Amino acid sequence: MKVYLDCIPCFFRQALEAARWATTDVQRHRAVLDEVAALVPRLPIDATPIDMGREIHRVAKEATKAPDPYRKVKRRCNDRALELSSACRQRVDASSDPLLAALKLAAAGNVIDFAVRSNFDLEGSIEESLGDGSRLADYALLEERLERVEELLYLGDNAGEIVFDRLFVEHLAKLGKRVTYVVRGQPIINDVTVEDAAYVGMDGVAQVIPSGSDGPGTSLRWCSDEFIARFKEAGLIISKGQGNFEGLSDERRPIFFLLTVKCPVVARELGADIGKILLRAQKDWRKIAT
Amino acid sequence: MKVYLDCIPCFFRQALEAARWATTDVQRHRAVLDEVAALVPRLPIDATPIDMGREIHRVAKEATKAPDPYRKVKRRCNDRALELSSACRQRVDASSDPLLAALKLAAAGNVIDFAVRSNFDLEGSIEESLGDGSRLADYALLEERLERVEELLYLGDNAGEIVFDRLFVEHLAKLGKRVTYVVRGQPIINDVTVEDAAYVGMDGVAQVIPSGSDGPGTSLRWCSDEFIARFKEAGLIISKGQGNFEGLSDERRPIFFLLTVKCPVVARELGADIGKILLRAQKDWRKIAT
Repeated sequence: MKVYLDCIPCFFRQALEAARWATTDVQRHRAVLDEVAALVPRLPIDATPIDMGREIHRVAKEATKAPDPYRKVKRRCNDRALELSSACRQRVDASSDPLLAALKLAAAGNVIDFAVRSNFDLEGSIEESLGDGSRLADYALLEERLERVEELLYLGDNAGEIVFDRLFVEHLAKLGKRVTYVVRGQPIINDVTVEDAAYVGMDGVAQVIPSGSDGPGTSLRWCSDEFIARFKEAGLIISKGQGNFEGLSDERRPIFFLLTVKCPVVARELGADIGKILLRAQKDWRKIAT
Repeated sequence: MKVYLDCIPCFFRQALEAARWATTDVQRHRAVLDEVAALVPRLPIDATPIDMGREIHRVAKEATKAPDPYRKVKRRCNDRALELSSACRQRVDASSDPLLAALKLAAAGNVIDFAVRSNFDLEGSIEESLGDGSRLADYALLEERLERVEELLYLGDNAGEIVFDRLFVEHLAKLGKRVTYVVRGQPIINDVTVEDAAYVGMDGVAQVIPSGSDGPGTSLRWCSDEFIARFKEAGLIISKGQGNFEGLSDERRPIFFLLTVKCPVVARELGADIGKILLRAQKDWRKIAT
């Protein structure tokens, strides 16, 4: 997915938020915005939001001398989600289709996203997703695919959310699937890293590997050769969140995108409403998934 | 009121919206954003949002060769408000305190503001303001002041909204007050000009004068000497909207600010919630209004 001009105001908002998480020094905040302003005219027309996001968060980190401005807030998100997890696990296990319930919960957890907004209603999002009795549009396709594969790649997105990913991964494991959970290669916004995966025990239920990318999403341009090899041979990829969608929407691989729709640009690209959870098979699924 | 760093993302959003009203040429849209990016590092720390708004809308107009991008949408807003006006007039006249009802309606009309967002709920805002039986916080102060003056300055803000201003001005005229209604000196966003005042018949109930300013609000820095003289001698000034508040919040004159709170920065400055209508006497009112 290419960057839209609508993303540019959002980049400034993100840069300012990152600078504020990093330092209380208003002059540093201003310096970050000035440097982001210098990037705008150099933004290639075919850039993805991830390419630009990577640059602006690099600027924010360097100008504030804070290599991981969201570290504390990520920890709080993980802790909050861990507090909710045992009640959520009980509700998932008690539901008529635990795999679907766990999938919805993982999608609802994607509401935690400091790239979009720092105020979100996690509990409300959980209630809405679990209270809705309907299936998700491409769930039947996912079930069909799951029957044909033994292992899958699961691309994580945000801290906190990873706790709900873990519940879903546990259900995939119950079906006998081997899951490789992919985290970012470097800290970026509130995205999951190896440290978060260890903190919430994801390494107990899945193999955890970094993508190598230091961007706020999975764009193969920034990933390691090792990850790209795994990506290209995977028979099923579950991709969480907007950032991974932005980077992979044009890759002809067997991907299911699982996310909460949070910004107008992604909503337009997906033809979906803001606030909805979504499971969407990659375009031309039937041609890809042979 | 000085510009906050939070205003910078908003300036880019405004510039993009203005460019899109002016032309469908995406390359022109991009050129506008690049030029606004070049302005950011040159923004003085003591600038007001009006100073910067004036610059970015100048850029948008020049780069798209459209001297008045909002002309058509302003006409539509005026027409929509005119359609609603006779029903509103009846409701105001039938209320127990017609002046207060007209005041609230004028504040509700301020929801029309393309500087903040191009989707707004005018009818909902009207219903909420007229349905609320409470007085506005500083209404008693305004009543007291109205008893002591024979004429007043009324600083208009947006097209459409001006129709509701007119209903309020009619009630001021019934009290025997001579009203001078002030419009912008040049087209800027959807703000009122002499043309809008004539279109909705404001010139039939008030003297209409331009402020001389080409900024999206009344900042004395950009106003004509003639207007400044009127402003300095006025015994009562009613100032509509956020833009006029941004420019006049530090002027020690007998001003009542009447507006719908629409952005987080102005909400913080006023200590009020977004979405609320507000009548607020200038700081230190008792010292000023002697």
